[in-house]
Amino acid sequence: MRETDLIDRIRRLAGPSPLVRGIGDDCAILRPRANEDLVFTSDFTLEDRHFTRKTHTAADIGYLALARSLSDIAAMGAEPVFCLVSLAMPPGFAVDSFFKSLLALARRQKLSLAGGDLSRFDKVLADVICCGRVPRGKAMLRSAAKPGDLLYVTGKLGRPRHRPQPRIAAGIMLRRLGVKAAMDLSDGLSLDLTRLCRESNVGAELSFIPIARGASLEQALHGGEDYELLFTAPPKLKISLGTEIGRITRSKRILLNGRPLEPKGFDHFAK
Amino acid sequence: MRETDLIDRIRRLAGPSPLVRGIGDDCAILRPRANEDLVFTSDFTLEDRHFTRKTHTAADIGYLALARSLSDIAAMGAEPVFCLVSLAMPPGFAVDSFFKSLLALARRQKLSLAGGDLSRFDKVLADVICCGRVPRGKAMLRSAAKPGDLLYVTGKLGRPRHRPQPRIAAGIMLRRLGVKAAMDLSDGLSLDLTRLCRESNVGAELSFIPIARGASLEQALHGGEDYELLFTAPPKLKISLGTEIGRITRSKRILLNGRPLEPKGFDHFAK
Repeated sequence: MRETDLIDRIRRLAGPSPLVRGIGDDCAILRPRANEDLVFTSDFTLEDRHFTRKTHTAADIGYLALARSLSDIAAMGAEPVFCLVSLAMPPGFAVDSFFKSLLALARRQKLSLAGGDLSRFDKVLADVICCGRVPRGKAMLRSAAKPGDLLYVTGKLGRPRHRPQPRIAAGIMLRRLGVKAAMDLSDGLSLDLTRLCRESNVGAELSFIPIARGASLEQALHGGEDYELLFTAPPKLKISLGTEIGRITRSKRILLNGRPLEPKGFDHFAK
Repeated sequence: MRETDLIDRIRRLAGPSPLVRGIGDDCAILRPRANEDLVFTSDFTLEDRHFTRKTHTAADIGYLALARSLSDIAAMGAEPVFCLVSLAMPPGFAVDSFFKSLLALARRQKLSLAGGDLSRFDKVLADVICCGRVPRGKAMLRSAAKPGDLLYVTGKLGRPRHRPQPRIAAGIMLRRLGVKAAMDLSDGLSLDLTRLCRESNVGAELSFIPIARGASLEQALHGGEDYELLFTAPPKLKISLGTEIGRITRSKRILLNGRPLEPKGFDHFAK
């Protein structure tokens, strides 16, 4: 198999691109619309770190790699536009299956595959870059939480799914409702809430934890890979989705029912 | 070391960003200017594939990872805007040294580090995404070569340097001169010229190969990692840089001094 043949095959699977130029040149080309901001994220999905080939098929890996990046796009309240996929793999890896699954998710979320990079490696490594668009100045930020805001989460926590659903529709709806502060829960509520509070220079008091069926409180607080959205809004804002779990405070501490909550989620560098 | 501490350290090294939002949120945020196209590329730089830790220090790897992506930006005639860096590494890797070196190149080429992803892995893996800007509709393309165009290359071929210089200034100058077709030489002239001809649906006749001092003709034709620009222009266009190496033809063949030239450059999937 030659690289050009493989790229041609992926190009055919990807179909036409709404970009000025998609797969096949040195770069993809996007013509931005007036009055929009563009948001960008990249996420590694690495064998034996984020998945194993015993638990995940090539199709599962393709889905997961895109879903992880889309979750960051959702957290900004952005509409997905395109992705670049860097993929390294050993001989025999079911690359068509990887891309078919990734592209099925891309079609459902209305974004196109615009390019990327392919390489050989002895393990499967994917890095997916997503670009999204939001009306100018309307992206939801980690740094926009204010004391007095109520704190919410979409969905229930502590039970990672094999194929997590990126909360794109929820993110867009929240942004339209006027929500200013949000992030996605990838490394566990306790650690991610600490990050949100740090960026906003605030604290939080948790009063209720929506625990997924079959999960423990410990898992709901510290387990990673929920891919739900954590967001805050002033009490006057009518929030029609998610669960209220607490409020944002002026003190820099994170409390659960009055007691300090230690961040114990998944820190890539703490172990 | 915690991930947030590492991200804070990189954020300090990176300095202020001209983006609406740089490092520290789920996504970076760019506010595009009117009448510009944005170009995007991603390139893996993987241990034991693109470098070894015997031949490359962390600083060399940081430089190379960004230079490889910038070479694609140069090929479009674009001005660099920002990069995202996904980096996975084993404990003990000189991550500060990697970023200092990458950021020194970024400053020289006037782009900012806007975000990325960090992970642990038993080998060093970098994926660098670059975004560049060009005036609307002016990006140089692989698909724009026309029969009758003269064929040029910047620099001499066959002698990869440890720290290749991305041809950003040359790319911008060529685009301003009116050059429409270009690509960067990363996998060897014979293979990359085949790709350019394929995208443009043309052929080429090579008549002169600028061989780097100490390199063989074989290396200049088929060796990879030159990171020079290959470009074409109609004879009436006055080209003030690079070397004329041949011309574009209507027949789909690639000839060197009248004989067929086989593409033998670096194909990631041919071996």
